Amino acid sequence: MRTIQDYRSAYADGAATPSSAIADVYGRIAAYGDAAVFIALRPIEAALADARALEGQGPQGRPLYGIPVAVKDNIDVAGLPTTAGCADFAYTPEVDAIVVARLRAAGAIIIGKTNLDQFATGLVGVRSPYGVPRNTIDPALAPGGSSSGSGVAVAAGLVPVALGTDTAGSGRVPAGLNAIVGLKPSLGALPTTGVVPACRSLDCVSVFAHSVADAWELFSAMAGPDAADPYSRQTLSAPARPADAPLRVGVPDAASRRFGGDALSEAAFDAALSAARAAGAALVPIDLTPFYATAALLYDGPWVAERYAAIRPFIEAQPEALLPITHGIIAGATRFSAADAFAGLYRLAELKAATSPVWADIDTLMVPTFPRPRTLADLEADPLGPNAELGTYTNFVNLLDLCALAVPGPARTDGWPAGVTFIGPAGHDADIADIAGRLFGTPGAASLPAPSAHGAVAPIELVVVGAHLSGLALNHELTSRGGRLLRAGQTTSDYRLFALAGGPPHRPGLLRVAEGAGRPIETEVWALEPQAFASFVAAVPSPLSIGTVRLADGSRPKGFLVEVEATHDAADISHFGGWRSFCAAPPQAQA
Amino acid sequence: MRTIQDYRSAYADGAATPSSAIADVYGRIAAYGDAAVFIALRPIEAALADARALEGQGPQGRPLYGIPVAVKDNIDVAGLPTTAGCADFAYTPEVDAIVVARLRAAGAIIIGKTNLDQFATGLVGVRSPYGVPRNTIDPALAPGGSSSGSGVAVAAGLVPVALGTDTAGSGRVPAGLNAIVGLKPSLGALPTTGVVPACRSLDCVSVFAHSVADAWELFSAMAGPDAADPYSRQTLSAPARPADAPLRVGVPDAASRRFGGDALSEAAFDAALSAARAAGAALVPIDLTPFYATAALLYDGPWVAERYAAIRPFIEAQPEALLPITHGIIAGATRFSAADAFAGLYRLAELKAATSPVWADIDTLMVPTFPRPRTLADLEADPLGPNAELGTYTNFVNLLDLCALAVPGPARTDGWPAGVTFIGPAGHDADIADIAGRLFGTPGAASLPAPSAHGAVAPIELVVVGAHLSGLALNHELTSRGGRLLRAGQTTSDYRLFALAGGPPHRPGLLRVAEGAGRPIETEVWALEPQAFASFVAAVPSPLSIGTVRLADGSRPKGFLVEVEATHDAADISHFGGWRSFCAAPPQAQA
Repeated sequence: MRTIQDYRSAYADGAATPSSAIADVYGRIAAYGDAAVFIALRPIEAALADARALEGQGPQGRPLYGIPVAVKDNIDVAGLPTTAGCADFAYTPEVDAIVVARLRAAGAIIIGKTNLDQFATGLVGVRSPYGVPRNTIDPALAPGGSSSGSGVAVAAGLVPVALGTDTAGSGRVPAGLNAIVGLKPSLGALPTTGVVPACRSLDCVSVFAHSVADAWELFSAMAGPDAADPYSRQTLSAPARPADAPLRVGVPDAASRRFGGDALSEAAFDAALSAARAAGAALVPIDLTPFYATAALLYDGPWVAERYAAIRPFIEAQPEALLPITHGIIAGATRFSAADAFAGLYRLAELKAATSPVWADIDTLMVPTFPRPRTLADLEADPLGPNAELGTYTNFVNLLDLCALAVPGPARTDGWPAGVTFIGPAGHDADIADIAGRLFGTPGAASLPAPSAHGAVAPIELVVVGAHLSGLALNHELTSRGGRLLRAGQTTSDYRLFALAGGPPHRPGLLRVAEGAGRPIETEVWALEPQAFASFVAAVPSPLSIGTVRLADGSRPKGFLVEVEATHDAADISHFGGWRSFCAAPPQAQA
Repeated sequence: MRTIQDYRSAYADGAATPSSAIADVYGRIAAYGDAAVFIALRPIEAALADARALEGQGPQGRPLYGIPVAVKDNIDVAGLPTTAGCADFAYTPEVDAIVVARLRAAGAIIIGKTNLDQFATGLVGVRSPYGVPRNTIDPALAPGGSSSGSGVAVAAGLVPVALGTDTAGSGRVPAGLNAIVGLKPSLGALPTTGVVPACRSLDCVSVFAHSVADAWELFSAMAGPDAADPYSRQTLSAPARPADAPLRVGVPDAASRRFGGDALSEAAFDAALSAARAAGAALVPIDLTPFYATAALLYDGPWVAERYAAIRPFIEAQPEALLPITHGIIAGATRFSAADAFAGLYRLAELKAATSPVWADIDTLMVPTFPRPRTLADLEADPLGPNAELGTYTNFVNLLDLCALAVPGPARTDGWPAGVTFIGPAGHDADIADIAGRLFGTPGAASLPAPSAHGAVAPIELVVVGAHLSGLALNHELTSRGGRLLRAGQTTSDYRLFALAGGPPHRPGLLRVAEGAGRPIETEVWALEPQAFASFVAAVPSPLSIGTVRLADGSRPKGFLVEVEATHDAADISHFGGWRSFCAAPPQAQA
């Protein structure tokens, strides 16, 4: 049983119960035999007690009923120590982190706490006093970090899903290096209440899973603001992009491609590009220079001071308790002044402004998850360089308030992993999940739930029949509002079209008549964002209105109608089949 | 001629021309005889040349045609030195600040550069090597700062309007101490390109004027993002609050009132409260504790490092070039580390979260502009304490991303000024201007232009006639979307009402018929924000639509109509006069 769906099916057909599944998970962990994956396991009796309690209540209203989850050890689980990868730092919280509490409320069963780069500082998974989890593809490779244990626990099939955290790539790099899915949501989408901060203004709780659908299910169960986290916010939304709109995928332009000179990784990414193109995506080369400049801020700028601020009393009291490499990085923060910090924030504001226009041209940015896999030997030779290289395509994401989703791409010809990451603006989590699912065949693209409980509103379809048609006099009222043409077509045979008095611009009116008593009328369906739709509808003049229009394709979008009272002195032009044909006809035919 | 309207009238009726007005302004400045108001005047020939050029072009398309404007000397005017109140810092820019360029494009004529507390650091107006502008109410009083020269120039009638800047109150305190209007817009509403930064993340360009309408006109001419200022953004909007909604005014609760023990200032503020109550406002006591905690951050926290970052090479190279008090404040920033800066940002995020719920209960927060006026003698005895006290009600505003408008309130019984400041959330500039205008009788409340050029969309009115009426089955679809009832009324006599087939919920349909062939039908008009309006319209089911409804009060809002095709098998219930009466009638009457 690898996926949430596997567990759900087994529970549904009686092949397993939560109790038997939990026993199985603990058995698998023992059999797997990598003591570096978990820093602490819950006693099996406690997990089994949870399972039996769930069985007593039943799956009703518990979308994650009986799903085992592992939790990175910088996220509080009541009663288990939180070490953040540093034994002397450890404390035992009395309450769960909010995300953990929400998972439990949804029926999930917590299995244990997973290993990490100390204080979530690193992208490698080797910076922990609790050992190095084995990479699941090749033991010679680094497992990736900082969420090393959670990534490996899922990839090895010990648990179907696990929580990580991601400040600079910690939720994506281990996913890429173990060929699973890593979801790094928009900043604040998952509250960090009960999470040991790394860079508090950039930290995200992340999800590891075997499919986009599983990652999305876990994410959905945890999303929503929490009063105790002032950075938390409502960002979850349904996909904003119409499912049948042309897909524009930004990709690094020639000068922005970085593979550390590794031809196999480069070829694997090219294969991913081909796959995207074959699936119908238009690839748009993007200059990543300002994105890389943003990443440089994280390494050379003052944000490391957030890591210092997060553990200041501890690091000042017990500097020797940290790994030397971790201490070296975090203590480096003391060289930055408050003026440096603000200068960094100004530079970031500039880079946000410089990068944000990109999103007008593309639906997502598709990049390698990392330039190339790196080995444990590489890191022994140079603990810092390969770590920095692994963050090439991840470091800028949180600073720029973007969301990202790492999926397994086509593997390298030598079998080493080559992940692909989809990036989008804050709040577009659902869009990039949808696109990643479509392009890379992971299950669940179609099953992304529209999270209506969160009040988000998708773009609204609008049927136009007159001067708003493409190329006609009022079409600019749609395009200037960001409207997008979705499809051309016609109504059912229930309508008549009238040339209304007045103008210019001359306008027609569409009137529904008795079923079948009319004829098909040419239409276009446009998509407008809610705000644009509102301003458009508010400006529709009498005698036109916006009601429901029956289209020949079976859909029933909102669209233009006319009040019957205005048709009494208007010419019935239905026989033209549409406004465009009417306008193109010679004047004598119009009369 | 004191106001923009005075100038405009004089130009219109030929009593003055821009040239004669400019000559008059220079004459008044000379006659006024306070050399500390302006640091630099443009040569009169240059201003007259501008005036003559304008006369050649005419007022067409120039909303500020021939309006003289003074500019605080930390805002660039091409060809004039920008000193920021420090001669050694001065440079002569070749281009105008964006706000100045926009004023010129609108027809304004720049007169000169005004005095300020050095580097805009202070709320007093005495921290300048260029002297202390005389307070226009009582020479014993501090003029207020940092925009001292601009405040005095307007209050003394030298120019009708002037630009200041406001980081912690510099655009409001001088307005209050000279009994004029000071508009401190939302962060980013006016780009700061070409302004010497104080705290770049908090700086606002501000406006001094004799009326709210004048301040709003100047603001409108300058508003809108600028590519060179990454903090600039689109915030300008029409008032969001319906003009006839009950007005809820937050006021400091008993424990939050601070007047420095001055009974006359306290009494003046009580008079302002009485005036607001008499004008129909409901006063809502607000605990200002978290607001004051925010203000403390500005004094005791790391934001002073922004002032250091702004002039770092200069202050490090020539520390002796600053006034000792200014140097002492700004150089104090070096004690703050980057970790301190981030800790301050976290605290601010918490305080933003703690204060933001307030805005659900009130339309504006009305506070004294300062606890009490302070004298030059006070400041000689203690240069820091009175400065801090003056910022009591202003310091928190920019940090919390709020907008504010200072207006003259009822004066103290001894004639000293007692200003009142209205505060609102970011983007509600128009609302607080509207409220301030209504409550304190400054001209122009009604004349606030709806700035349609900026693409903002005000709440949209929606006419309901059926199950959406107050108390009926579908009314929750309005209230759950934040809808507000604006007015009850009826349509013109052009409509018939039908009880449609189907339901529950049972619904009527409103059909327009020949003029006068119907009868008035009971309606309610609700206001919905655009996003809510969009989701509401998108959910309107067939055969209903949203078109234009003619109301008896002469208005023509959008509202519910029905397709005529659906009325053929529906009962005409127009004689009930409305859906509510129909529903209340006994079944036999309905049949």
